[in-house]
Amino acid sequence: MKKHSFKTDFEEGCHPQILRALSESNYSQQAGYGDDEYSIAAREAIQRHIANPAADIYFVSGGTQANLIAISATLRSHEAVISPKSGHIYQHETGAIEATGHRIQLIESQQGKIYPEQIIAEVEAYFPPHTIKPKMVYLTQSTEVGTIYSKAEIEAIRRICDEHDLYLYVDGARLGAALSCSSSDITLAELSQLCDMYYIGGTKNGALLGEAIVINNENLKEAFRSNIKQKGGLLAKGRLLGIQFYELFKDQLFFELASHANAMADKIRQALIEAGITFMTDSPTNQLFPILHDHVIQKLNENYDFYTFYRHDAEHSVIRLVTSWATPVEKVDEFIMDIHKLISK
Amino acid sequence: MKKHSFKTDFEEGCHPQILRALSESNYSQQAGYGDDEYSIAAREAIQRHIANPAADIYFVSGGTQANLIAISATLRSHEAVISPKSGHIYQHETGAIEATGHRIQLIESQQGKIYPEQIIAEVEAYFPPHTIKPKMVYLTQSTEVGTIYSKAEIEAIRRICDEHDLYLYVDGARLGAALSCSSSDITLAELSQLCDMYYIGGTKNGALLGEAIVINNENLKEAFRSNIKQKGGLLAKGRLLGIQFYELFKDQLFFELASHANAMADKIRQALIEAGITFMTDSPTNQLFPILHDHVIQKLNENYDFYTFYRHDAEHSVIRLVTSWATPVEKVDEFIMDIHKLISK
Amino acid sequence: MKKHSFKTDFEEGCHPQILRALSESNYSQQAGYGDDEYSIAAREAIQRHIANPAADIYFVSGGTQANLIAISATLRSHEAVISPKSGHIYQHETGAIEATGHRIQLIESQQGKIYPEQIIAEVEAYFPPHTIKPKMVYLTQSTEVGTIYSKAEIEAIRRICDEHDLYLYVDGARLGAALSCSSSDITLAELSQLCDMYYIGGTKNGALLGEAIVINNENLKEAFRSNIKQKGGLLAKGRLLGIQFYELFKDQLFFELASHANAMADKIRQALIEAGITFMTDSPTNQLFPILHDHVIQKLNENYDFYTFYRHDAEHSVIRLVTSWATPVEKVDEFIMDIHKLISK
Amino acid sequence: MKKHSFKTDFEEGCHPQILRALSESNYSQQAGYGDDEYSIAAREAIQRHIANPAADIYFVSGGTQANLIAISATLRSHEAVISPKSGHIYQHETGAIEATGHRIQLIESQQGKIYPEQIIAEVEAYFPPHTIKPKMVYLTQSTEVGTIYSKAEIEAIRRICDEHDLYLYVDGARLGAALSCSSSDITLAELSQLCDMYYIGGTKNGALLGEAIVINNENLKEAFRSNIKQKGGLLAKGRLLGIQFYELFKDQLFFELASHANAMADKIRQALIEAGITFMTDSPTNQLFPILHDHVIQKLNENYDFYTFYRHDAEHSVIRLVTSWATPVEKVDEFIMDIHKLISK
Repeated sequence: MKKHSFKTDFEEGCHPQILRALSESNYSQQAGYGDDEYSIAAREAIQRHIANPAADIYFVSGGTQANLIAISATLRSHEAVISPKSGHIYQHETGAIEATGHRIQLIESQQGKIYPEQIIAEVEAYFPPHTIKPKMVYLTQSTEVGTIYSKAEIEAIRRICDEHDLYLYVDGARLGAALSCSSSDITLAELSQLCDMYYIGGTKNGALLGEAIVINNENLKEAFRSNIKQKGGLLAKGRLLGIQFYELFKDQLFFELASHANAMADKIRQALIEAGITFMTDSPTNQLFPILHDHVIQKLNENYDFYTFYRHDAEHSVIRLVTSWATPVEKVDEFIMDIHKLISK
Repeated sequence: MKKHSFKTDFEEGCHPQILRALSESNYSQQAGYGDDEYSIAAREAIQRHIANPAADIYFVSGGTQANLIAISATLRSHEAVISPKSGHIYQHETGAIEATGHRIQLIESQQGKIYPEQIIAEVEAYFPPHTIKPKMVYLTQSTEVGTIYSKAEIEAIRRICDEHDLYLYVDGARLGAALSCSSSDITLAELSQLCDMYYIGGTKNGALLGEAIVINNENLKEAFRSNIKQKGGLLAKGRLLGIQFYELFKDQLFFELASHANAMADKIRQALIEAGITFMTDSPTNQLFPILHDHVIQKLNENYDFYTFYRHDAEHSVIRLVTSWATPVEKVDEFIMDIHKLISK
Repeated sequence: MKKHSFKTDFEEGCHPQILRALSESNYSQQAGYGDDEYSIAAREAIQRHIANPAADIYFVSGGTQANLIAISATLRSHEAVISPKSGHIYQHETGAIEATGHRIQLIESQQGKIYPEQIIAEVEAYFPPHTIKPKMVYLTQSTEVGTIYSKAEIEAIRRICDEHDLYLYVDGARLGAALSCSSSDITLAELSQLCDMYYIGGTKNGALLGEAIVINNENLKEAFRSNIKQKGGLLAKGRLLGIQFYELFKDQLFFELASHANAMADKIRQALIEAGITFMTDSPTNQLFPILHDHVIQKLNENYDFYTFYRHDAEHSVIRLVTSWATPVEKVDEFIMDIHKLISK
Repeated sequence: MKKHSFKTDFEEGCHPQILRALSESNYSQQAGYGDDEYSIAAREAIQRHIANPAADIYFVSGGTQANLIAISATLRSHEAVISPKSGHIYQHETGAIEATGHRIQLIESQQGKIYPEQIIAEVEAYFPPHTIKPKMVYLTQSTEVGTIYSKAEIEAIRRICDEHDLYLYVDGARLGAALSCSSSDITLAELSQLCDMYYIGGTKNGALLGEAIVINNENLKEAFRSNIKQKGGLLAKGRLLGIQFYELFKDQLFFELASHANAMADKIRQALIEAGITFMTDSPTNQLFPILHDHVIQKLNENYDFYTFYRHDAEHSVIRLVTSWATPVEKVDEFIMDIHKLISK
């Protein structure tokens, strides 16, 4: 029998409601390239959630695709995107942004986050014609290490962007987890209002695939779909993405799925804290980074799959535990029991 | 009630066997990025069909994506791809190839096809350092106007490629229709053997999405998956593509679906011929390009959706009729009756 | 002893006045990157000639560089440049434009030129998101086959550009020859007024190297120098270009040099016409394309270098004869005598 | 009267021997694009100096151009170049490398230099398909802060490159100064042997413009000139570069000019040391980075131009002083006297 995996939140298929909707709509003939009825309905549902009927919304297949299209469609040739060093576009996307001709201008990140004064420093270092022009700020919410920006923090970055003519773009691969966690003090509509562009991640929150790019800034809307097509991101059967995002956003399913993932992580976090374990980052979302004794890790690995990320000291390492919309509560309970057994030893 | 559409072959969802497989596998935890059990099984199934266990096979989301990854991963910066002017990469992909830095070197096409002497002429015009180097030949099978290359024609192009150190790449968005039509004299395995690289189209042959890129040439295999990732084509839930291609290729489903589409087109073609209609191209596959009187087109349009492509003369135009894996035989029969009624008038 | 060459107009060094200016300025310390006193003076001199003190003017090393910078700095990722098929950017620049990510949208050219209705046809074929957007028109003046656009022709193209929101960019590698020939009905200032951007060629008109890019359109001015730097076109010793363009434009040297080249071509043209020779194109500038019997070509080749371009019929070919600012009148006289001897035979 | 400038080493024109050669060759008709007699002779002269008659050598206009052509012609789309953070390609080239589609993989540099273990760390972090592949190491010799690599240091990096299948590319914008300084323990021929590719800087060592790219590695030679042309780097009048490099390398002029610049810097360095001044970096070449009291800087600035680079502490800053092939010894003597006056105060 396979071990249960806490490796990531895209190891299961999709929420059964989505499968049902795919089946029910299967023989309906639909226009291609996102002009189908479901995509239209999904866009309207998201526009309601973000309280912006003027937003342009496009559905694409994955996060790297969303990022590279959003950034390359926005920047002119001499412009760059500012990102925390921990940013997904820098760490895990195989040079996708540079392949479109743009530098990622790095900022040292703490707990996966960057701060206004760091952005200002980059802007002030601009020295034309010898350096590229920082023009866009890239953030992830939640971050690659599970942390989240507070409303005040994003507002502060927004102000900097306004003052220095920068676009704010948020990578929301795990936006559901960020918005639905108990520490969150910002709603989707509030976050949306602060961004020029962002994407809402479906792949890591219960969809088979799919991210919804939302464009609020009028200047960034022109010919965006042409850019999607050019980069290979315009699905012929756009219905596949439309159906899924309609199911996620027609009511609250998107948030319910994220809440489940967070709740499962909350249980594990609580148990680890009670067992005296500390964490690499202060993550309130569905990714946890506990620092464990190597023999505990080895033992846990007999029954569970997860990534061991960093060596902490001679005897301890940091592992990553990720829960998903589909993580069974029984598996979490078993895991907690195993933790207690191993650590009380 | 909606009119039946003959606009294209990607207007329905997917074959129900695929939906079933998605449901059955839904809660199985699977590795990401194409390392799941289904993708592995799908690759093996295709390797059997093409009789090449050494082929590298990757699944991506769509045709433009497949083409831009295949071409940009292969060509060096001073190299170009030769394509018929009617080629999909030139006509319908929004400059995707040029966006990766490479010119498409055009050849005037007849009936969607190009011929060895045309390729030789391009090679002979190479004049370094002032012109780019033709390095790859791009074909579509079946072509954008429904025609197919015979085995002898592809063999002749292969010989030219060997003599002039060119790669042969086949865009198989509608490869199923090409291989399964009654005029075809080539099998998938035979075609495969003649190509350095090609892709097998799923989107237009019964899958929700997905194309299988097959690499036979050893020199083109290195780091190909990195190129997929860089261009945003590596799905986190690769299972979604693996499951579909496994269903299509574990037995003969891929070919059965294409045969159905072709059979429906055969019926329509036969009826049109009997009604004295001629065609823009000699298509034996699931795309037909009849030349109809404008009043016939107008009448047909009351009950059916299709594209009107070109004006033929003052009173006639060319329309495109496309059948799919899901086209109901009753709709075809109705359409044929309507044709007879309209044309006997 | 070396044969005299009529191969091209960049086979000699530069006008001695330029060498003198280089010597005289040699030990003066000057700011880099085009901020030197000579570049400033050269910009002012050109602004006076074109009667536009607001024009932005930059000096770069060569024509391919000028073209690729001008076009890539202007176009957004989904946009393309329209060019005659004979255009230098398509025929002789090794895919330089595509290497920056943009397609060259081809128009069949007659005598090296394109016409408004052809441009309109391209604009009307725009079909987003599946095709790229034509956004810039590229012309050469004089063309690659020596012909020139009349003032009315350029005005007509300008109107089309205004109506369809296109930029007009003129490649002036041989602009001197075009403006200074006897058929020209347009001045530099008039041409300038009709263009969003263009470049004035120095390399082919008596400079050691250098082209002056002139930007009239405000929208195209931002960060242009950053784009020059990014593409490797910003010379550290910008003085080298500034000194040359100052010499060429402080008075009338630029036009005098072109007039000499044209006058030499006029003499040869006249002699060929008198000898009953016809031409491939109706060139009034310093490039001539006579159609000669192959044995005449062979004989001429014993004493002169030139390119044989095309086979015309079984016994005749088209050769190209190019005169330059430095072509000695004695060589022209000798050539004419040889022509007479060969053809009267 | 203008103040003497120590801002950089490209503020004067060129060595008079070069001007003389330009004049003498001026009316000789020469083939274009680097096929002229002077370029051929210059290549042979350099081949003799580096003792490698098989080296491919190309002349281009400037350093950014040399770097972007060398790197983009070499790397495949998923590959990256490793550079010290202080590297010119990262700090002063406006994203030129990224504009060709490649990331610069940064290493923290000390005194402008990187070390084998840092390169190994980058190689070991390669995690396909999610990260780009480090494939080339970029160094500058001398570095942006005037320091140089010893022979042993470059040999150690070469070994790492061999072990990990990396190319070694050296940016020699100031290679003359590096090789000719008193601390140098490596000859041009020895350095050449250790590199796959590098360039010899002319612009900063007495030429009007020009850098010589030298390719030793057979695998990097194919179609390199096509890449130069595509990137706008192939001068029509290649003679301009050939003549200069022939003058620099037919005998020892290249080294003599660098020696003069170094000797002038040596005098200044000695004087500063005697005055008790310390330096930001331990530069033995023609760039000095003394740490001076702000009032000294202000006073010096009344008579001399130079860049003030960094604030060192509340009362001190780092300035950069650069000497050139043309720096007059009298100006250096005056400067030293001024230093003594200011600092003895």
